[in-house]
Amino acid sequence: MEEDLLKEKEKLLKEKTVETMEKYSGGIINVKVAQVKLPDGKTSRREVVEHPGAAAVIAEHEQKIPLLLQYRYPTGEALLEIPAGKIDKGEAPEDCARREMLEETGYAVEGKLKLLTKFYTSPGFCDEVIYLYYADEIEKKSDLTGDSEENLHLLMLSREEILSMLKDNRIKDAKTIIGLQWLLNGGW
Amino acid sequence: MEEDLLKEKEKLLKEKTVETMEKYSGGIINVKVAQVKLPDGKTSRREVVEHPGAAAVIAEHEQKIPLLLQYRYPTGEALLEIPAGKIDKGEAPEDCARREMLEETGYAVEGKLKLLTKFYTSPGFCDEVIYLYYADEIEKKSDLTGDSEENLHLLMLSREEILSMLKDNRIKDAKTIIGLQWLLNGGW
Repeated sequence: MEEDLLKEKEKLLKEKTVETMEKYSGGIINVKVAQVKLPDGKTSRREVVEHPGAAAVIAEHEQKIPLLLQYRYPTGEALLEIPAGKIDKGEAPEDCARREMLEETGYAVEGKLKLLTKFYTSPGFCDEVIYLYYADEIEKKSDLTGDSEENLHLLMLSREEILSMLKDNRIKDAKTIIGLQWLLNGGW
Repeated sequence: MEEDLLKEKEKLLKEKTVETMEKYSGGIINVKVAQVKLPDGKTSRREVVEHPGAAAVIAEHEQKIPLLLQYRYPTGEALLEIPAGKIDKGEAPEDCARREMLEETGYAVEGKLKLLTKFYTSPGFCDEVIYLYYADEIEKKSDLTGDSEENLHLLMLSREEILSMLKDNRIKDAKTIIGLQWLLNGGW
């Protein structure tokens, strides 16, 4: 697959904004509706959820992987997820990753973070990007987990436990599945 | 990790709805804001994007994997994605997977679909669930790809090309990364 061919095709697919209407402005998300011009000249309507983006960290410490059980109101259930959180205004994604790791697990990232990938969670209607990092060294600093608005329960799980949970679909969060597959498979 | 312990912890984390306000009702998504009661008795506010859910298919045909290059307006770029689409009202996720495969690629799923996992794309603010299937047999039926509102370009890529693209982060869509990791790694 030639990179040039891909760029060429991408140009042909581009949709141009005709008009944008703000529909909702909230604490975390904004919603806009755009009228767009398609490559064939027709027009269509696109709903867009704007999100500040997030950073997430997959790590391993003494052969255990930190996961958080967190109640996710939109889903009506508690999910097992890798440490992650929204990027603050002006914050570098890597700083966000370090901050969330410490806030949510009480473990500090020692040394470097490796960016594994950045991806869109749901590009059909949302611009959210998640920066996914690997921390090869973390160290316990505190027993506190979460902030006042988050109710978290930290679990340190073995690779065997996690593999079993992936197979049984007891892990149900996209970023977590991507990070765990990367770790369990020893890379891409 | 005991399943019972997990259920017990989940109960303790539950957030109860006090009041819900509709903020936006659109073609694909709705937005609501809920006032919730946290386990410690405090209240908080949750923004929820409601989405009908989607189905996606990872497949391989003559050692090539079908991916679609599609312009994704919210992201401002064209992304490489596995065939996927929204579940119609009343439609079974598996029927949606078969329909989208045919509509988007011109290939029909022959025989069974295997459900690999279902996951939330962004559970912090959205209820979207994606059902991810594996089709071990597909057959070319048509040269048409996409519907009138979709501008798609079908690519049939080898495992080597895809591995290189995963490593270089040229694949940037969560469901696509999950499906490709599963296939390239020979399962979970």
